[in-house]
Amino acid sequence: MAEIEVGRNILEANQSMADKFRRQFAAQGVKVLNLISSPGAGKTSVLEQTLKRLSGRLSCAVIEGDIQTDEDAQRVAACGVPAVQIQTQGACHLDGPMISEALEALDLEGLDLLIIENVGNLVCPVDFDLGEDMKVAVLSVTEGDDKPSKYPALFRAAGVLLVNKIDLLPYIDCDLERIHNTCHTLNPQQKVFDISCRTGEGLKDWVSWLENWVRS
Amino acid sequence: MAEIEVGRNILEANQSMADKFRRQFAAQGVKVLNLISSPGAGKTSVLEQTLKRLSGRLSCAVIEGDIQTDEDAQRVAACGVPAVQIQTQGACHLDGPMISEALEALDLEGLDLLIIENVGNLVCPVDFDLGEDMKVAVLSVTEGDDKPSKYPALFRAAGVLLVNKIDLLPYIDCDLERIHNTCHTLNPQQKVFDISCRTGEGLKDWVSWLENWVRS
Repeated sequence: MAEIEVGRNILEANQSMADKFRRQFAAQGVKVLNLISSPGAGKTSVLEQTLKRLSGRLSCAVIEGDIQTDEDAQRVAACGVPAVQIQTQGACHLDGPMISEALEALDLEGLDLLIIENVGNLVCPVDFDLGEDMKVAVLSVTEGDDKPSKYPALFRAAGVLLVNKIDLLPYIDCDLERIHNTCHTLNPQQKVFDISCRTGEGLKDWVSWLENWVRS
Repeated sequence: MAEIEVGRNILEANQSMADKFRRQFAAQGVKVLNLISSPGAGKTSVLEQTLKRLSGRLSCAVIEGDIQTDEDAQRVAACGVPAVQIQTQGACHLDGPMISEALEALDLEGLDLLIIENVGNLVCPVDFDLGEDMKVAVLSVTEGDDKPSKYPALFRAAGVLLVNKIDLLPYIDCDLERIHNTCHTLNPQQKVFDISCRTGEGLKDWVSWLENWVRS
């Protein structure tokens, strides 16, 4: 019971920080995505490919959440985009205080799109609102077609699902239709893009949809 | 501070349950593995392939941890092995109380090996001792060669690392040597097997090592 009570207090405190961020983002006219997936589903590759294609079209910045290392922030910075690294030092998700610290190091002025790359974890990040306009789930086909039914919370909450690594479909046992059907049942409004960051397949559609969404 | 304090209390309570399980397992002569990985790295496939090969050689049982569904327990039961499903209902890791409940439904008498398949999560399960003799990490090469350095806790703690899905190496950018080197730095005593549950490569070595370990 104590655990549940404290958990509730933590989530409530997080929520009021998230609400504050959301007002701040709206006031500055910046749209915010919270990118969530398992470790290794391809969040950073999605970021690289997306930022490259948005270059010169939208002004973007990134907050990188990792337990350790700043490799991802370096990969993003190589795309010419401001990137702030949060090292969570063992914590399994980003939360309000971490975002608050990152925002101190980030100039929102003139920004169109801020993408927050969460820690690789299909479970815990879903519970912590970061003030984003939308959660984007990345699922790689190599994880298996049973993942949306086994970890439904993210796939229910995400406004967009990027099904990544579809170039590997010929070499694995994964029923893409099952992923689509389960996710449609969990969230019929969800926008789904099948993509490959390796071959580029599907990225044009995703990025053009994203650009329209940011401008809307 | 309250969060840290309560976190510490939870971990301490968990530890004393784990110590009790460990004494119980030792008294009954059953060896226990705690299988940990990202979602979709192939824990259940590893289980299926391992149990199939141990059939008639060791008496095995499985505790299956999933957030939702009992698909994995069904897959394990199809191998002719007793399987108890824990549905964590949103919790991101198994803990002492869940194992305690599962043990009530499981007959340890005459058992050689109990394998606990944790929730798919590279982070949180590492902190919760379940009374196991050894943690086994499963990492699929499709997750990328940077994962051990980005999520070091598991790769430091695991006595065995199974690098899975090596049949996909020709189709992806993954430096297997980097995985080996990082893990060796994190834990020089770690036993590493490169395997493919799809082609069977490496499984014989792993299973024969495991059988010897159980009998030792």
